[in-house]
Amino acid sequence: MDELPGALGTSASLALRLGQAVFSIASLLFMCLDVEFYSYTAFCFLVTIMGLVIPWSLTLAMVDGFSVFVKRPARQQGIMSIVVMGDWALSLLSLAASCSTASVTDLLMASGASFCSTNLCGRYQLSAAMAFLSWFLSLASSLFNLWLLASS
Amino acid sequence: MDELPGALGTSASLALRLGQAVFSIASLLFMCLDVEFYSYTAFCFLVTIMGLVIPWSLTLAMVDGFSVFVKRPARQQGIMSIVVMGDWALSLLSLAASCSTASVTDLLMASGASFCSTNLCGRYQLSAAMAFLSWFLSLASSLFNLWLLASS
Repeated sequence: MDELPGALGTSASLALRLGQAVFSIASLLFMCLDVEFYSYTAFCFLVTIMGLVIPWSLTLAMVDGFSVFVKRPARQQGIMSIVVMGDWALSLLSLAASCSTASVTDLLMASGASFCSTNLCGRYQLSAAMAFLSWFLSLASSLFNLWLLASS
Repeated sequence: MDELPGALGTSASLALRLGQAVFSIASLLFMCLDVEFYSYTAFCFLVTIMGLVIPWSLTLAMVDGFSVFVKRPARQQGIMSIVVMGDWALSLLSLAASCSTASVTDLLMASGASFCSTNLCGRYQLSAAMAFLSWFLSLASSLFNLWLLASS
């Protein structure tokens, strides 16, 4: 099953990891470029989770890059299990964070213009959308890795 | 792999399905027993998703019950794929709905007592907690079934 695209150590996996990192960084930047995010619990949650997703994705992207461009190391069952569990946890947490952010932003926009000064809510929406894209790529990674783990 | 506990057609799966149905019905009741839920998008989302989870879980609980108590039908790959995809979709949607409900309730409670008359917010919190428990059981079902599908 070494040819499964998207599993750890392939070029498709490298692309998925880089996409996750880019979207997470974009989400974090859209959220953090103003200073008011810490007054809402959901936004703090999003910032925390994105701060966890970025180093995780970058580390695994380096592993994939090494595996694609230098030499392919042997896949060990134990390491794969850790990668799959981390992927699943982060994927579920980022789904939770993006949905919380989206629904809180929706409520803020519905409750009037006083909460959304100078395009702030548009930026929150963009941040939630980026987190959602990052979740989608992360889900793809974890599904491929779980499939590889189960079928090996 | 017919002995994997929790996969379709076992008694553990029957217990998981019944738990999902019970928690979903509890969540729906806590949310719908007042008439104000449709003024918030997140709460409408929760009601919609719980309305989808309940018939799905009850149908699969009947399949499991038939399989446990009467006779075990042969598992077909196509049917298993449909069950796994439906499980995954509903599990992710119920996670999204419960997180949205929890964060909106949190924001409503933080923004003052005027939105939370007569223990309404406590009821919303209970509804989100029940949806969260239903998501957890649903995740367990879908993981077992995906593992069975991948390893068969």
